Amino acid sequence: MLAVTDHVFDSATRVTAGDSCWQGRTSEDYWAFVGPFGGATAATILRALIEHPQRAGDPLSLTVNFCAPIAQGAFDLDLRLVKANRSTQHWLVDMTQGDAEVTTLATAVFAVRRPSWSHQQAEFPEAPAFEQTLPYMKMAAPWVRQYDFRFVAGEPKFGGAPLTAPASAFSKMWIGDRVPRKIDAPSLMSMSDAFFGRVFHARGELMPFGTVSLTTYFHADAEDLAAEDITRVLAVADARIFHKSYGDQIGELWSPQGRLLATTHQIAYFKA
Amino acid sequence: MLAVTDHVFDSATRVTAGDSCWQGRTSEDYWAFVGPFGGATAATILRALIEHPQRAGDPLSLTVNFCAPIAQGAFDLDLRLVKANRSTQHWLVDMTQGDAEVTTLATAVFAVRRPSWSHQQAEFPEAPAFEQTLPYMKMAAPWVRQYDFRFVAGEPKFGGAPLTAPASAFSKMWIGDRVPRKIDAPSLMSMSDAFFGRVFHARGELMPFGTVSLTTYFHADAEDLAAEDITRVLAVADARIFHKSYGDQIGELWSPQGRLLATTHQIAYFKA
Repeated sequence: MLAVTDHVFDSATRVTAGDSCWQGRTSEDYWAFVGPFGGATAATILRALIEHPQRAGDPLSLTVNFCAPIAQGAFDLDLRLVKANRSTQHWLVDMTQGDAEVTTLATAVFAVRRPSWSHQQAEFPEAPAFEQTLPYMKMAAPWVRQYDFRFVAGEPKFGGAPLTAPASAFSKMWIGDRVPRKIDAPSLMSMSDAFFGRVFHARGELMPFGTVSLTTYFHADAEDLAAEDITRVLAVADARIFHKSYGDQIGELWSPQGRLLATTHQIAYFKA
Repeated sequence: MLAVTDHVFDSATRVTAGDSCWQGRTSEDYWAFVGPFGGATAATILRALIEHPQRAGDPLSLTVNFCAPIAQGAFDLDLRLVKANRSTQHWLVDMTQGDAEVTTLATAVFAVRRPSWSHQQAEFPEAPAFEQTLPYMKMAAPWVRQYDFRFVAGEPKFGGAPLTAPASAFSKMWIGDRVPRKIDAPSLMSMSDAFFGRVFHARGELMPFGTVSLTTYFHADAEDLAAEDITRVLAVADARIFHKSYGDQIGELWSPQGRLLATTHQIAYFKA
């Protein structure tokens, strides 16, 4: 294994098969303020599933529920194929640490995707080219430094005067790995949690925040992604409501050529 | 128990606690073409969780993965509280039939929702009043007859000449129980799967179709819903892409007074 030449994302999401379950370690490269970046955790789970010898087909959906804080260090992943038929697989994954404390619970569907009628109703969100968009430079947490964010709309401006009215939660941005890496399902999974908290945008300030449940749907299989052959996506994110300490997020990840690759939704806690 | 006066929805979603897990039966009233209506299954799971003695707080999110066809008759529900803290609970549910074959896998988050800053960014989808909108009369499957659908936009028109171009997948409609019943979390859960397949709208015809994974987020707790005191919702549904036999759906359920009660997303199989 040429670990020294591995992309930092591949090192961060690596798992190894053990006797009863799979093991991994949190990555300092993708650390957030009080735990690993949720996108890296979700991508680690997805990658373990993809590498599982029983896996068939491509990821169709992954739901990750963040049950408890994940401590720095080792974790176990228990991957269970709950049901399978000719074309789909249903998986259940739990991530545990220490004395089998569940930190993360996930369900996934994999599918062998067959040719069909195809129609993309959503409109490609037009944007200036990546090269003509300025990089986002405020990178407080290690995980943010792993990405090259280039905001087209809704660049966050935190720390100014308090807003007199809520600002828009909408953002449009290019997202690529800081060290370019070809887009695959695990990187889409990670990027689908790489939007900053929508409540930060709406309130123009940072506050305690945490994703509770995240679901991403994949609209491109490995063959489609290989054909795109890209290292970045154009992404949009928005929110519809913040109420009684929880708010939603909805997002889309597009190839620069205009293909919708993944859609994502989450509900997150905030304290404000 | 005054079963004879129960609403048909309450009869359909009833479960009883047994020794090791909970039991229920599929309902003929909410039958679809080849199995129970997925919304009724999801609502049954949610109701069992709400009635569980260890449950605390209100539903925040429910993800239901439909793993295998559900046969008419009895099923078991195994409800497991995976993790809990002072304000949130993470649940794992599996529905089995016969020789412990898993038909349905679900994860849920419950939360004690505390007062916070509140902001509804999404705009209420204006519509003529329920009373001024005509009921939808084409009710092929039993479950459809349990609802009073009144389309404001995107009423499905199936069985005409094949479309020369894809039609819009967008619909806006009133949804209430046919026999009016106060909106609660289980009925929101069920209604969040009560949109007709978006691919039917886009193609103007029916075809083999099945929801694979459904997630609904709740933006109102029991207290909020009690204050609304409503028997119907204004709903919108749309899709972004249909590709390689799977398509997405996104939906919103609003109170007539303009409060966003729930948002929902699903990925579904289609054959076309």
